[in-house]
Amino acid sequence: MKKNSIILYIVGVLLVFESAFLLLPMIVSIIYSDGNWMWYLATACICLVLGIPLTRVKPGRNLSLKEGYIIVALCWLVLSLVGALPFVMSGDIPNYIDALFETVSGFTTTGASILSDVEVISRSGLFWRSFMHWVGGMGVFMFMMAVLPMLGTSDMNLMKAESTGPSVERIVPHVRDSARLMYGMYFGITLAEIISLMISGMDLYSSMLLTFGSVGTGGFGLLNSSCGAYSPAQQLIIGFFMAASGINYTFYFFIISGKIKEAFHIEEVKYYIGIIIASTILITVNINRMFDSPVTSLRHAFFQVASIITTTGYSTVDFDAWPELSRMVLLILMMIGGCSGSTAGGIKVYRIVLLMKQFKKELSVLRHPREVKVLRMDGSTVKESVLRSTNVFISIYFVIFFISLLLISIENYDFTTGFTAVTATINNIGPGLSLVGPACNYGFFSTYSKIILIFDMLTGRLELFPVLLLISMLKPRINRKAFHR
Amino acid sequence: MKKNSIILYIVGVLLVFESAFLLLPMIVSIIYSDGNWMWYLATACICLVLGIPLTRVKPGRNLSLKEGYIIVALCWLVLSLVGALPFVMSGDIPNYIDALFETVSGFTTTGASILSDVEVISRSGLFWRSFMHWVGGMGVFMFMMAVLPMLGTSDMNLMKAESTGPSVERIVPHVRDSARLMYGMYFGITLAEIISLMISGMDLYSSMLLTFGSVGTGGFGLLNSSCGAYSPAQQLIIGFFMAASGINYTFYFFIISGKIKEAFHIEEVKYYIGIIIASTILITVNINRMFDSPVTSLRHAFFQVASIITTTGYSTVDFDAWPELSRMVLLILMMIGGCSGSTAGGIKVYRIVLLMKQFKKELSVLRHPREVKVLRMDGSTVKESVLRSTNVFISIYFVIFFISLLLISIENYDFTTGFTAVTATINNIGPGLSLVGPACNYGFFSTYSKIILIFDMLTGRLELFPVLLLISMLKPRINRKAFHR
Repeated sequence: MKKNSIILYIVGVLLVFESAFLLLPMIVSIIYSDGNWMWYLATACICLVLGIPLTRVKPGRNLSLKEGYIIVALCWLVLSLVGALPFVMSGDIPNYIDALFETVSGFTTTGASILSDVEVISRSGLFWRSFMHWVGGMGVFMFMMAVLPMLGTSDMNLMKAESTGPSVERIVPHVRDSARLMYGMYFGITLAEIISLMISGMDLYSSMLLTFGSVGTGGFGLLNSSCGAYSPAQQLIIGFFMAASGINYTFYFFIISGKIKEAFHIEEVKYYIGIIIASTILITVNINRMFDSPVTSLRHAFFQVASIITTTGYSTVDFDAWPELSRMVLLILMMIGGCSGSTAGGIKVYRIVLLMKQFKKELSVLRHPREVKVLRMDGSTVKESVLRSTNVFISIYFVIFFISLLLISIENYDFTTGFTAVTATINNIGPGLSLVGPACNYGFFSTYSKIILIFDMLTGRLELFPVLLLISMLKPRINRKAFHR
Repeated sequence: MKKNSIILYIVGVLLVFESAFLLLPMIVSIIYSDGNWMWYLATACICLVLGIPLTRVKPGRNLSLKEGYIIVALCWLVLSLVGALPFVMSGDIPNYIDALFETVSGFTTTGASILSDVEVISRSGLFWRSFMHWVGGMGVFMFMMAVLPMLGTSDMNLMKAESTGPSVERIVPHVRDSARLMYGMYFGITLAEIISLMISGMDLYSSMLLTFGSVGTGGFGLLNSSCGAYSPAQQLIIGFFMAASGINYTFYFFIISGKIKEAFHIEEVKYYIGIIIASTILITVNINRMFDSPVTSLRHAFFQVASIITTTGYSTVDFDAWPELSRMVLLILMMIGGCSGSTAGGIKVYRIVLLMKQFKKELSVLRHPREVKVLRMDGSTVKESVLRSTNVFISIYFVIFFISLLLISIENYDFTTGFTAVTATINNIGPGLSLVGPACNYGFFSTYSKIILIFDMLTGRLELFPVLLLISMLKPRINRKAFHR
């Protein structure tokens, strides 16, 4: 009883927050008078009715790691379950599972849509859809700051991989201060992009939606052509801010502290920028014949690379029609993902770098058995437990990946569709290839498959363990009964 | 100088052995008078001319782990480089790279072929092709017994994953004894299958070739339809022996020692049998509409499952035409592979089981933080170093996988073809899906892609590290020079 009270309390607080978030699309609806304001108001009321009673009893103790994980998984689930209601009520997305898919896709900053025609959705609906990305991005930072630091005392060091190296916790010792700082930077980048887009001639509404989608590394747009209809300058602005949003926020902390040199010495950031440059060049060469000038090829290559590595999912062209090499580069970028300490999804550059270093170390031990080798990242030794958790993460990642692929394959779509649908959801990207390519959508999947993909989006966003823990909690009582008999 | 002598000595011994192996296809050629006997004799002479001088200086010291790894990689490479010659000389496969692909595919027990029409190949050519599987299978056991035990003193515990649990080394302390035992069992299974097939009405030549292919888990056949033209009884015999060849040979040791109960208590074997049964049932249900009776469906399902999980690659039907679910089950089986301690390739059931147990443990630690959990396999605690090496193995496996996929994609074939071509070679299976499906072959790939796939076959067979170590050895001097400057 007492054990669950803290979980319920936090879910309650979250619902109160969601009711506040819902006022924004309500205001948008009133401004554009699309007639949907009451549905957002109604949902906000539901949030308050459900949420306020839960916040009555203030639990006076700290969270355990297990509770932290469960809360995080529940938060995303509850946010989505309630957040889907306005879509159904307004008729923008009449089917609840479809609406839930869209909402989970929003809050997990995936950007995979079941809508075949985005342009018929109401102004307030599109706003809510994109705003969820922005809220989801904030949630990721909350997750990183509130749950990750707890891992220090636990054996389950999975997320430590992200808190090693130049972590925000180390720079600013108090969680509250670092949270303020993180959100400050997040707001700052958001404002900068909105202003940049407006200077380029875009209206406020479009600027805001596209900014929510890129800063939150989400990818919901407001046109069927995603970002294909915008001017080259606007595409470059969006591309730049996508790439910037995939960088570890520690980088920005260094920058605003005037430590420019330190900022560019963060290993993860160096590799991240290196991967972007190398992939952009490779794709530019590969697609050059498809466009009228190398500059155009370069722009499209950069935009798509920035969009995919940050797991945003915007597109300026249908990259599913690109040659196989470019498609494979993008597929691999989908799995790598952005930096730890950012809103991007995927395995994360940090883990890939650690893996490569381990690999180099193993080979080096073989060649010079007597040398004692330690694995360093940003100058400090990486703990054995961090390495272990990184490897377990990557292995489990592929296990979940292939189980999802197997479950999806019952629908009998082609391999590329199934494979990239799972890739694009578990890494929180949005578009994949073939039937789920950038020119297509997820609407054709059955409810069964949509639920699997919803699971993948949540699991990927929360770095696998919270969702799996929540599921494994569903049956402990049965097990214990059997045990005591 | 002295350092390399042991490596050269062993390569020399190997070449002398190969000259002996080459006498068998020579005899076959004489029996069927296909006119190719002199090419096998010529190659045997080349082996002796190259090999004997190398064996002159007997090095009087033990191998280091690094040398063991390099020797293993070199052995497979030298065996293949020389073994490809008769194909070129006889005109069976005039192009040397094609012949090398076929030979590497043979010795690594992969079974991927570049031949579009197997039936036009000479009798001796087909014999040599299949016999390479059998030799390769023996080589795998040699690798497991001569190189793996050395890993005990090293930090590089990668292969320990396979020597933990009920390992042959533990049961029979001396390598020489265990080698004799292993080869005894290998010969025994070989004889049993040849006799079974002959009783079913097959001629000696076909029986031998199919046995080499199934006992070595290779997959080269002698008909274009692979095993589709044989009687149901013969297909079941081959299926049974394939499944049996993927079992950890420790199982057979227990069986012949009369410890039937212990044999079936080996965890890896239990999971292996469980996976076969579950996959067979799933596929039988999924393909049932395609065949006239459930019994036929069951037979085809079992044959394909046994063939794929053991990474053999024989087929009785074109499973590329099966529904997506069955194709995905087979694709996942390709990656899992057979048991450790067998000739099968893939990640190995042992590693997958360890991974799942780790995963369960991590979740359990989260749920009950105060309980001390140890990870057990076959009743004994698994060391931390074994877990680490298992995870590094699986992670590196996927890294190599995706790099190969990227390199192959330059050829611009469809995703399924590229993906499954890499899967089928790195796991030493043979057929994949789409353009490399069981009804097709690898002949259409360019020389460039063939070399990448040759690399994948070797790397997969030798469990990643030996080949990578050999490659990393190619540039140490340059690095050191740069370092000393």
